[in-house]
Amino acid sequence: MTPIIQLGLGGVGRALVRQMLAVAPTIRRRYGIDLRYTALVDSRGALAGDPALTDDQIQTVLTAKAAGHHIDSLAHAITDRHWLELLPATMAIVVDVTAAGSHAAPLAAAISAGHRVVLANKRPLCESYELFAALTERGATRYEATVGAGLPVIGVLQSLIDSGDEVRAIEAALSGTLGFLMSELERGVGFADAVRTAHQLGYTEPDPRDDLSGADVARKALILARTCGMHLPPDAVIAEPLFPATLKEISVTEFLQRLEEAEHEVMNRLQVASANGKVLRYITRISPDNGVEVGLRELPTDHPLASLRGPDNMISFTTNRYADRPLVVRGPGAGVEVTAAGVLSDIIATAREL
Amino acid sequence: MTPIIQLGLGGVGRALVRQMLAVAPTIRRRYGIDLRYTALVDSRGALAGDPALTDDQIQTVLTAKAAGHHIDSLAHAITDRHWLELLPATMAIVVDVTAAGSHAAPLAAAISAGHRVVLANKRPLCESYELFAALTERGATRYEATVGAGLPVIGVLQSLIDSGDEVRAIEAALSGTLGFLMSELERGVGFADAVRTAHQLGYTEPDPRDDLSGADVARKALILARTCGMHLPPDAVIAEPLFPATLKEISVTEFLQRLEEAEHEVMNRLQVASANGKVLRYITRISPDNGVEVGLRELPTDHPLASLRGPDNMISFTTNRYADRPLVVRGPGAGVEVTAAGVLSDIIATAREL
Ligand SMILES: NC(=O)c1ccc[n+]([C@@H]2O[C@H](COP(=O)([O-])OP(=O)(O)OC[C@H]3O[C@@H](n4cnc5c(N)ncnc54)[C@H](OP(=O)(O)O)[C@@H]3O)[C@@H](O)[C@H]2O)c1
Ligand SMILES: NC(=O)c1ccc[n+]([C@@H]2O[C@H](COP(=O)([O-])OP(=O)(O)OC[C@H]3O[C@@H](n4cnc5c(N)ncnc54)[C@H](OP(=O)(O)O)[C@@H]3O)[C@@H](O)[C@H]2O)c1
Repeated sequence: MTPIIQLGLGGVGRALVRQMLAVAPTIRRRYGIDLRYTALVDSRGALAGDPALTDDQIQTVLTAKAAGHHIDSLAHAITDRHWLELLPATMAIVVDVTAAGSHAAPLAAAISAGHRVVLANKRPLCESYELFAALTERGATRYEATVGAGLPVIGVLQSLIDSGDEVRAIEAALSGTLGFLMSELERGVGFADAVRTAHQLGYTEPDPRDDLSGADVARKALILARTCGMHLPPDAVIAEPLFPATLKEISVTEFLQRLEEAEHEVMNRLQVASANGKVLRYITRISPDNGVEVGLRELPTDHPLASLRGPDNMISFTTNRYADRPLVVRGPGAGVEVTAAGVLSDIIATAREL
Repeated sequence: MTPIIQLGLGGVGRALVRQMLAVAPTIRRRYGIDLRYTALVDSRGALAGDPALTDDQIQTVLTAKAAGHHIDSLAHAITDRHWLELLPATMAIVVDVTAAGSHAAPLAAAISAGHRVVLANKRPLCESYELFAALTERGATRYEATVGAGLPVIGVLQSLIDSGDEVRAIEAALSGTLGFLMSELERGVGFADAVRTAHQLGYTEPDPRDDLSGADVARKALILARTCGMHLPPDAVIAEPLFPATLKEISVTEFLQRLEEAEHEVMNRLQVASANGKVLRYITRISPDNGVEVGLRELPTDHPLASLRGPDNMISFTTNRYADRPLVVRGPGAGVEVTAAGVLSDIIATAREL
């Protein structure tokens, strides 16, 4: 059996548990791999099996989490020990689908002890370069879902590099929310109204500044750049925010009211681009020679990223072998089901190696 | 060490050997895998190492093949035994980068004996469904390069399926040559002239009918459909040819002269499409419910495949999870370097499991 410890039971975490239960029998038949949950962990506690959780126990956790409860409310929950101590003596897979910033060091410790890691959580890969190197050495961590959710991005990049290709440039649109907003602006909607609508429809984070700051895109850019072999510190990638510093420290309600103060700058940029016969996109540009940029850029209308409409992600790889025409991947880059599927594929690939 | 037997030393085979020699030290450091050639095989003979070929021996083979010689001309060449007999007692990877139609059964025998297979050659997967099943059961064969060369296609499809997603439709442009031709027609070039130019530039096979028959696309379509779980016999996919049966049995020279006899039909289809406000593309359509189609089809101008110009391949997956917006991969789908890189990535992935 391949023991799995899963950290995080939010949207992605619960979708992952459901998918895992659904496919485990097929995976057993197809590849002879027996995936079993050893422990499920949330921010307050864990439920551990001996050696594995039963389907009934797993369902109890799912039900409790879906109802907004925490694992510490369940019978036999463990609250006094760190998840590291729950790892079995045999090789296990630790899956981090939390939104926590605190797991990089313990995950690296798990790897030192011979375990493997799969991540949807970007933060462990965005701390010091040394921690990134410790997590990823010998392919000990898979992290496809951190960029583009279920789209093939990280695995493609690693395959290119492993086969001796060299990246010249990666150009990408990595935020569904910002993609949606730019399309709304192109349809003639004002920036403030577009953000308010996106917020109402639940297309943005609860605090829309989490999207508009570009911080999440910057994390994805840092992960891509480090995967390319660039030894970058965490602060090497600075995203251009789509609102002024004066709107930074206020409440969400006040921010939504004062959005007009951010509108002028963005609409102005859009008009200049348009007057130049170009389109405006919020993009990531990585090249080993010129570093990493994250922000609004004017693009010629025949640029691959210019064709993008709505919330799709797009990632374009130009390399020594894909020099004249890039390798391009496109599609929805967020959503709990596709993200969970990306994580599950990584778990299966890892288990096939153990 | 991971022993490798490589069948085929044509364009792809030689690029693969060069890439392998270049990355082997890095792969050893990065993943602790020691990739070694046990034997190199062409249509007339083999050179085998004990246990592995030296770099000097490998260079000798490369030089001989590049000069148009066969392995049987080399000292210590083996000509009296089948490559199956050269397989070591420990688990090895057999790589088929030949253009041969005769390897499916021996490859299946190698798998029965516990070895693994990596293919760029489509033919072994296009014989009886039983042989396809024997080759692919338990993931024993990887075959990313058979469709789209180095583009992520087969691996993406398998990940979707393994994670419990269901394919509703695959729509794809899988022939760079036919893509180039359709773009020429859209630029106003006549069909006969476009084919002659493509032939002169070396964009087609030596006999352009090998491209224009759609037979190679049909093989890719069959591989995709079988990978989706469709239990299809070899003759289930019939491609629409772009020339009449009267031009089938004549010489290449005569075919190139009489191309005008194929022109009328294609130009007519193009005009009808254009009058309907649509574009004409040579596409593959697979859906588990409606089967597999390979041929010229009219597409609305906002269809993802309609945006394709020139020789790029494009593959669009619509699934239960990618229902509203498909997952799309695009880029060059042929070329010896990118094909070899696709094979090498499969070899590395396989070696990491052994
Ligand atoms: N949603 C997407 O489309 C998407 C796409 C790509 C990547 N991701 C990444 O995937 C991760 C999960 O996303 P989500 O949408 O599922 O988020 P979510 O619904 O907010 O869930 C977060 C989960 O993390 C848990 N958690 C937080 N801190 C923890 C800690 N210290 N120890 C253990 N568990 C902790 C929370 O526990 P409690 O339940 O106890 O609060 C919760 O279960 C995030 O890192 C996100 O960036 C998401
Ligand atoms: N080129 C591409 O872009 C591309 C893309 C995807 C897939 N592929 C596939 O990759 C394969 C190789 O392509 P290529 O372009 O390298 O073709 P190629 O240059 O024609 O080379 C074919 C090789 O196969 C060998 N061969 C033929 N029959 C054999 C047999 N029975 N036993 C051992 N070796 C045999 C030939 O041996 P000799 O040297 O002795 O004649 C030659 O070395 C083909 O199946 C092709 O369809 C190619």
